Amino acid sequence: MNDAYVRLRARFARLATVEEAAAILHWDAAAMMPPGGGAARGDQLAALAGITHEWLVAPDLAEWLDAADPGDDPWEIANLALMRDRRSRAAALPGALVEAQARANSACEKIWREARAAADFARVLPAFAEVVHLAREGASALGAALGIDPYDALMEGFQRGVRAADVAPIFAAYETFLADALPVIEARQIAPHSPAGPFPEAAQEALCRRLAARAGLDFAHARLDRSAHPFCGGTPTDIRITTRYDESDFAESLMGVMHETGHALYELGLPRAMARQPVGQAAGMAVHESQSLIIEMQACRSDAFLAWLGPVLRESFGGAAAVYAPENLARLWRRVARGPIRVDADEVTYPAHVILRFRLEQALIAGDLAPADLPGAWREGMAALLGITPRNDAEGCLQDIHWYDGAFGYFPSYTLGAMAAAQLMAAARRGVAGLDRALGAGDFAPLLGWLRDAVRGRGSLLGFDDLLLAATGKRLDPEDFMAHLRARYLAGAIT
Amino acid sequence: MNDAYVRLRARFARLATVEEAAAILHWDAAAMMPPGGGAARGDQLAALAGITHEWLVAPDLAEWLDAADPGDDPWEIANLALMRDRRSRAAALPGALVEAQARANSACEKIWREARAAADFARVLPAFAEVVHLAREGASALGAALGIDPYDALMEGFQRGVRAADVAPIFAAYETFLADALPVIEARQIAPHSPAGPFPEAAQEALCRRLAARAGLDFAHARLDRSAHPFCGGTPTDIRITTRYDESDFAESLMGVMHETGHALYELGLPRAMARQPVGQAAGMAVHESQSLIIEMQACRSDAFLAWLGPVLRESFGGAAAVYAPENLARLWRRVARGPIRVDADEVTYPAHVILRFRLEQALIAGDLAPADLPGAWREGMAALLGITPRNDAEGCLQDIHWYDGAFGYFPSYTLGAMAAAQLMAAARRGVAGLDRALGAGDFAPLLGWLRDAVRGRGSLLGFDDLLLAATGKRLDPEDFMAHLRARYLAGAIT
Repeated sequence: MNDAYVRLRARFARLATVEEAAAILHWDAAAMMPPGGGAARGDQLAALAGITHEWLVAPDLAEWLDAADPGDDPWEIANLALMRDRRSRAAALPGALVEAQARANSACEKIWREARAAADFARVLPAFAEVVHLAREGASALGAALGIDPYDALMEGFQRGVRAADVAPIFAAYETFLADALPVIEARQIAPHSPAGPFPEAAQEALCRRLAARAGLDFAHARLDRSAHPFCGGTPTDIRITTRYDESDFAESLMGVMHETGHALYELGLPRAMARQPVGQAAGMAVHESQSLIIEMQACRSDAFLAWLGPVLRESFGGAAAVYAPENLARLWRRVARGPIRVDADEVTYPAHVILRFRLEQALIAGDLAPADLPGAWREGMAALLGITPRNDAEGCLQDIHWYDGAFGYFPSYTLGAMAAAQLMAAARRGVAGLDRALGAGDFAPLLGWLRDAVRGRGSLLGFDDLLLAATGKRLDPEDFMAHLRARYLAGAIT
Repeated sequence: MNDAYVRLRARFARLATVEEAAAILHWDAAAMMPPGGGAARGDQLAALAGITHEWLVAPDLAEWLDAADPGDDPWEIANLALMRDRRSRAAALPGALVEAQARANSACEKIWREARAAADFARVLPAFAEVVHLAREGASALGAALGIDPYDALMEGFQRGVRAADVAPIFAAYETFLADALPVIEARQIAPHSPAGPFPEAAQEALCRRLAARAGLDFAHARLDRSAHPFCGGTPTDIRITTRYDESDFAESLMGVMHETGHALYELGLPRAMARQPVGQAAGMAVHESQSLIIEMQACRSDAFLAWLGPVLRESFGGAAAVYAPENLARLWRRVARGPIRVDADEVTYPAHVILRFRLEQALIAGDLAPADLPGAWREGMAALLGITPRNDAEGCLQDIHWYDGAFGYFPSYTLGAMAAAQLMAAARRGVAGLDRALGAGDFAPLLGWLRDAVRGRGSLLGFDDLLLAATGKRLDPEDFMAHLRARYLAGAIT
């Protein structure tokens, strides 16, 4: 590597360090900050974002990128390519547009909270139309700079290597699968015994900590706190996960914490030798979601793990043995139900929510769907995909923050991640003898060991499909996800 | 104001915004961060400090400072002068020296922790000698740039407008007072009834929150958490205070929280119109300490307030009425005892600890005291000031972190603040009718209202003595502090 590349490495390390500071401040805003700190926090985060943006578009960075020689190491070569991508994305958007987007998104997000509470789309429409207008302008600029379709340029910002033309047929295949499978699954379901609460928060939290630690979360480098919307934030040596507790039901906190633990393990397992370099960071939101879902959905809701978990739960919460039998836990926690709300959806119907959004946001960005026509298009889409109609827009197109905050191209990551999780789990089962036997003993080590080499340790070395190819022998193949659902929901006797 | 000054205001606002981010990260490191996050946090704070330092020494800032016209508003005029001070201080120290100090201080602080635990000064001496060497170099550079004595230049960094030549006679006067008063106070003391614990942490915390809120702390803009060493951090709209709880004694948490509440109220009460400008920030550490001590020592340990507090305490913790009688609380919480440890000292003997450090650190910076000779000089000084000899250096010159972390010139702030608190309280009593009657009803509003105009609302408009002059009609006068001690500890019958 030459001097220019060494300088680039130092600049990007400094940039990542400032982004770490911002990540902790984001976590603090959600988990700790008193409400009166919000305005100043917005300024602080904007100041840090402004600094990193200035560094990315600075002339010296461009000179170093032109002159850089990373040597022969494929990690350094990939690192330089990612540096160029970051520079291209940052330079593609004029400063005035970035500022206009920040202002419009922030203003719209505030109005959206009121509009959702009042189930009144008209209230947010003017602000939302401006957000869409600016998002389209940004997508065009990004697409032109990267030489790809504007919507792809937005998706690429969340998950490198994903294209709408690849995603569309995968989602279409799932739509077909769902139309056939959903009625059958619904007909086979048996009502579970429900646990009788209350389940004290302290007991839930203690159990969450115990299970997260058992799944490999090292609390010397992690925290678990509460927030209104559970998430995983922080940095690769100081990861912060949150949850919320419902004393009438321990499932949300428990499964939520295992989900966030999956995200956290990904960050903690990134290659330390490439820390703070672009190639040492997480590979994107779809890969991130695969890591949360392989822990929550694939491992923790497996028959094997539920058999181990039942007695542990009963020890924590007491009550009738029938509740904690593994087949009852499966009926409770693998219940499939059509509903209007994405975040409440089960793993079978969840992709339908994403497919709807994927199609609508493509149309919004392409200019084929006017913001004013969103509520109607939403209702039609929900009827077609799941056969249900939201009672109002709060249960419809107002339910998610993403678009109202300017985030288009993110939604596909959820389902691409779910599909990747199934594909990775199938490969892990092939690659690791006794993986389910270990989960049946509450032992995550074999799965984690496989994921370390297959995913975490690779950082951002590979894009989405290339990572799956390297880890599983094929690009994203929805068949593994559908096979997982068939095995879990359609196979065997009805128990 | 002209364009150059408008640019300066924007640059300093941005700088303060980044410093706010750093303040939250400092709080997080002490109150929230898992231990494994420490190394990355050090990098994050160094990166933010590097950014603000670069902005301060940038050529464009110098040009704007030369060309700036702030107009006729005294606030803007003072603001520009403070901007020039910050630039001068930042530019005075070569980057290589700043980095060498950061490294040496950080290394020494780590060794100091071991040395203190082992009561082994020799272990830290080499690292400490380097810290002193670099501190002297920095003090010389700062003194030359500011045209003042090197030690004064260090003090000025913590409290503007304080000079050793002014402080020395004030401290000497106190030394004389103490030599006479201390034996008399000790002879008059009566043993208190001690409260019988345990006092559950939850009850202590609830009471701390209630009393802090009663003293004016608005939890929409504040948090109370735990940390090993209580402190006040955060920002003027998002203030974070911490304490620690001892279940055998509620005094430490309660009085500690009231102390930190005083600091917090100062930050929350700074002039919002000048937020993020140098003139809108706290006036220095001595003024800050005056604001914590006027709440903790002047108000909360007053006869009037203790009479109100007794029944509140008994309601929270139960137990014998005799314990909660105001005269017993006074005997408990105004007990005077010579001891080797500064942070355990009462308000009468505390200044002796500061006077010792003030004299020793002047000698260290002047080169009149070799680091190797510190333990002996310390023992001699303690014997002369308080008539006691520490059992070892852990109870002597190793007890405080300040010097080992490179902070020279800070210690005087504690006693200047204590004296200023007494002077401000005397002025408040003159200025506000019924101030003690209000405290006797648990009502801080009259005191707070007076302080808002006299201190908080003035931000950094005035230096230390000028602020006291404006608020109380005279520069710092130790007589008010001594009069306070006479009234509290030497007047009236022994009860």
